[in-house]
Amino acid sequence: MSDFLNSTLNNIRIVLIRTTHSGNIGSTARAMKTMGLRSLYLVNPKNRPDEQAVAMSSNAKDVLDNAHIVATLPEALEGCRVVIGSSARQERSLSWDIIEPRECALKLVEQAQDGKVALVFGTESSGLSNDELAYCQHLVNIPTNPDYSSLNLASAVQLLSYECRLAAMQSDNVKTSRKWGGVPEKSTVTADEMEGYYQHLEESMIESGFLDPKSPKHLMTRLRRLYGRVELTKSELNILRGMLASFKKK
Amino acid sequence: MSDFLNSTLNNIRIVLIRTTHSGNIGSTARAMKTMGLRSLYLVNPKNRPDEQAVAMSSNAKDVLDNAHIVATLPEALEGCRVVIGSSARQERSLSWDIIEPRECALKLVEQAQDGKVALVFGTESSGLSNDELAYCQHLVNIPTNPDYSSLNLASAVQLLSYECRLAAMQSDNVKTSRKWGGVPEKSTVTADEMEGYYQHLEESMIESGFLDPKSPKHLMTRLRRLYGRVELTKSELNILRGMLASFKKK
Repeated sequence: MSDFLNSTLNNIRIVLIRTTHSGNIGSTARAMKTMGLRSLYLVNPKNRPDEQAVAMSSNAKDVLDNAHIVATLPEALEGCRVVIGSSARQERSLSWDIIEPRECALKLVEQAQDGKVALVFGTESSGLSNDELAYCQHLVNIPTNPDYSSLNLASAVQLLSYECRLAAMQSDNVKTSRKWGGVPEKSTVTADEMEGYYQHLEESMIESGFLDPKSPKHLMTRLRRLYGRVELTKSELNILRGMLASFKKK
Repeated sequence: MSDFLNSTLNNIRIVLIRTTHSGNIGSTARAMKTMGLRSLYLVNPKNRPDEQAVAMSSNAKDVLDNAHIVATLPEALEGCRVVIGSSARQERSLSWDIIEPRECALKLVEQAQDGKVALVFGTESSGLSNDELAYCQHLVNIPTNPDYSSLNLASAVQLLSYECRLAAMQSDNVKTSRKWGGVPEKSTVTADEMEGYYQHLEESMIESGFLDPKSPKHLMTRLRRLYGRVELTKSELNILRGMLASFKKK
């Protein structure tokens, strides 16, 4: 994995406030680690990570062990350039700048390239309080089924961490292709090799009587469109030609 | 919620093969429902949805109650226009057309506007077998931390369902803004029609001597991969079958 990707994702802090169930802390750690995030802050959790948290973390125990446990939200946000709160509620009394997960990830990754940023999650039952919201610059809302928006804490962390990983990978690719230029080539066949195949196909179909040269009915055009679309590899083309040859011999 | 969004998401089938833990079936149902998906197929699960599944489903019991339990994968795929398999493995002996979640969602949603499509998940411990892969046109791989790619089944379903919801929302917006324009209908073939073609192809190749059933050399797998990728229309399939028949007659 690239250093850029690693260091960017390390700079994205997941902050959980007053989490009630320690199992949720464990599954959050797992969700983070699958996407390469490692920095977990727990603000005043009901229970410190315990056995249940470890069980739910499934080998992401290192994330739990390195978690920072603090008493207040401002302590968890120290040094952060951007703070985004996660909100399930669609409407609030004060109209907020609510952004989508993809935009949220872009904002976080952009700043995480050079410093710390935070994504904040409220307690399971009621989300972020108005006091806590006051520390956030933006609110992110994950689109859900309006009839059943029961995303649990770890699932919300999973989805937003995934978006962060994608955004960081994209940013990394831009950097890498700038550095080295070019994308690895797939051994697709050349235009003249395709022409050879089409000729072979046409001859075989005329011979079998399927294609009447006097009334071709766009048959070759349709087959060109079909095989053109598929972007054949060299070995696939060899199979198709071998198959045609075997039908002819028969 | 718009009817378009509802009906599109209803057409996306989640297929779980030989699931070992019934709790995972429950959390999958919950993950699906949060994103508005409802159609669940269970192929030969170790246990039918039980109390543990219901407990993990957290009010998505309706998805469990309506789940279809079938004996084989082809039964679960009946009538599906596109079949995409979820794979955690990055490399395979035969190089597959591996797509990203976002592209996967676009492909599914495009076809789900007029018919059924399927997203297939293998058993928890080992994923999709090679036999099961043969039914898939594409493989989707969720980008994860290469040092810890331990996404559980329900998390993978959560992420891909989320991408489907976003793609359907986007598509809904486009439709609404187009008003009367409409998209030309593409009548792609269903999974069972493709199976009919593969059978025809295999018989013809055995007859011509190109395919030796004693030493098949992945030939059918490669051809399935090729024709799966191209997303044939009905008229293209008719051409291919007509061509095969003409070669046989000769």
